[in-house]
Amino acid sequence: MSTSSTGASWGCSNTEVGVSSDRRRITRIRDAVRDEAADHVAVEAPLTVIVDGQVLATTMRTPGHDLELAAGWLVSESGVRASADISSMGSFATREDEGVDTVRVHLAEGVRPPRARAFVTTSSCGVCSSDVLAAVPAPEGPLHSASWTLAAPTITGLLDGMRERQRTFERTGGLHAATLVAPDLESLWTHEDVGRHNAVDKTVGAAVLADLLPLTDHALLVSGRVSYEIVTKALAAGVGAVVAVSAPTSLAIDLAREHDLVLIGFARGSHLNVYAGDNRVTTGG
Amino acid sequence: MSTSSTGASWGCSNTEVGVSSDRRRITRIRDAVRDEAADHVAVEAPLTVIVDGQVLATTMRTPGHDLELAAGWLVSESGVRASADISSMGSFATREDEGVDTVRVHLAEGVRPPRARAFVTTSSCGVCSSDVLAAVPAPEGPLHSASWTLAAPTITGLLDGMRERQRTFERTGGLHAATLVAPDLESLWTHEDVGRHNAVDKTVGAAVLADLLPLTDHALLVSGRVSYEIVTKALAAGVGAVVAVSAPTSLAIDLAREHDLVLIGFARGSHLNVYAGDNRVTTGG
Repeated sequence: MSTSSTGASWGCSNTEVGVSSDRRRITRIRDAVRDEAADHVAVEAPLTVIVDGQVLATTMRTPGHDLELAAGWLVSESGVRASADISSMGSFATREDEGVDTVRVHLAEGVRPPRARAFVTTSSCGVCSSDVLAAVPAPEGPLHSASWTLAAPTITGLLDGMRERQRTFERTGGLHAATLVAPDLESLWTHEDVGRHNAVDKTVGAAVLADLLPLTDHALLVSGRVSYEIVTKALAAGVGAVVAVSAPTSLAIDLAREHDLVLIGFARGSHLNVYAGDNRVTTGG
Repeated sequence: MSTSSTGASWGCSNTEVGVSSDRRRITRIRDAVRDEAADHVAVEAPLTVIVDGQVLATTMRTPGHDLELAAGWLVSESGVRASADISSMGSFATREDEGVDTVRVHLAEGVRPPRARAFVTTSSCGVCSSDVLAAVPAPEGPLHSASWTLAAPTITGLLDGMRERQRTFERTGGLHAATLVAPDLESLWTHEDVGRHNAVDKTVGAAVLADLLPLTDHALLVSGRVSYEIVTKALAAGVGAVVAVSAPTSLAIDLAREHDLVLIGFARGSHLNVYAGDNRVTTGG
């Protein structure tokens, strides 16, 4: 196998050193005290995989070790079982014409290729491309009323309530949850699923069937982390804020800021981080 | 909108009551004491979504609220913004001819339909169908040598080592990790990613590029939960054991048992649960 990579030579256990974390200015609220800080966040960015000239996949991933990512995916999806099954492989930093990082793979003769269209790992992107970022739908109207704010102590109470309603999680320890909170701060419903994105889809789905869209001034609580995909779903439904127990990715933060979505992470007890829209989060009760 | 559902009437916030958790007999090891128990596990099962007669999607999800799931997905992926945008929707328990649960949706006239092929949320299944379960590849050879075992105290030490290598996680709190452990119990490498499946792909990819496949008697450590998809990837690479810090799903357990893969979950300190292959997990050091 011959390999190439922009910016670094190729090796087995440590190929390209990608940028796996980045910094964002955030607002921290700790026991009603507010300060600003530079926070490290995990980078999430699209990677396109091209096998024998055919665009097979665009996936969201953390940059770095993209050749290993493509090779490992080919173990699952094709006949690749040894390095000789790959005749060449190269990783290319962002292509100017498409705006995404790319791995190009050529399989050795006779190796079973992946099934077409097998590798779309976010539900929000098309099969091939570049338009992953541009494809994020802008909200159809404003996400908040002019005076809408969310108070930090209120958020704590809402998350406590979601946890109480996570009945399957209590039994199994294995489910994500999402809760929709109305403008009057009533928790409308909580749904659970093994997939984070499914828990959000069930919650937004209940809202569209109840004719509540757009979800102006509503908050969406999620039990885990916030990726690009979760922010995309929130924007499509028009919610005012996403509140997460864990970390957001770089792309989730950037998208939230672009579209004026309030994004709160690491909301635990009396502490939380505001990643976007801090003018709408107050310390008072 | 008219709706139908097998077994239950339809409502906004609580439609079908699916089976969201199930029981499995497991072996628990607590401070070198071994006992058997019936454990609750989160159910993971495929759902096919058919929109206007066209199979658009098969996703892994936790059963229950399938109509909300489909409706919420349509908010992200189509022009659906109100209940009137869906002219009818029905949920059907497992179809005998296909072996999966199904939601059939008809959109109202003029509503923008989803892009074709947009909803494949596991990388291991094809676009349409039913063959999700049957498509899991059997390992190409035995996963273990006859005498291979894994000791509970060793597992604790290996997980401690993985955590020390999760450098980006320490900074961001937002990344999953996977580590490959050789038969001599050396940790070969650890990779991190915002996606659980990507962390596993990077780790398996490093192994295939180093010509280590099949990964007989190797263990794959994962920082989070274990879904169908993770077990599928482990089986394709031929690893002997998957060890997770959190819970496995029902389908992950069933697949591991079917293919003789050792599956350990909730491995924390001196406690762990053995979900499959308990004859290969010892309490001694």
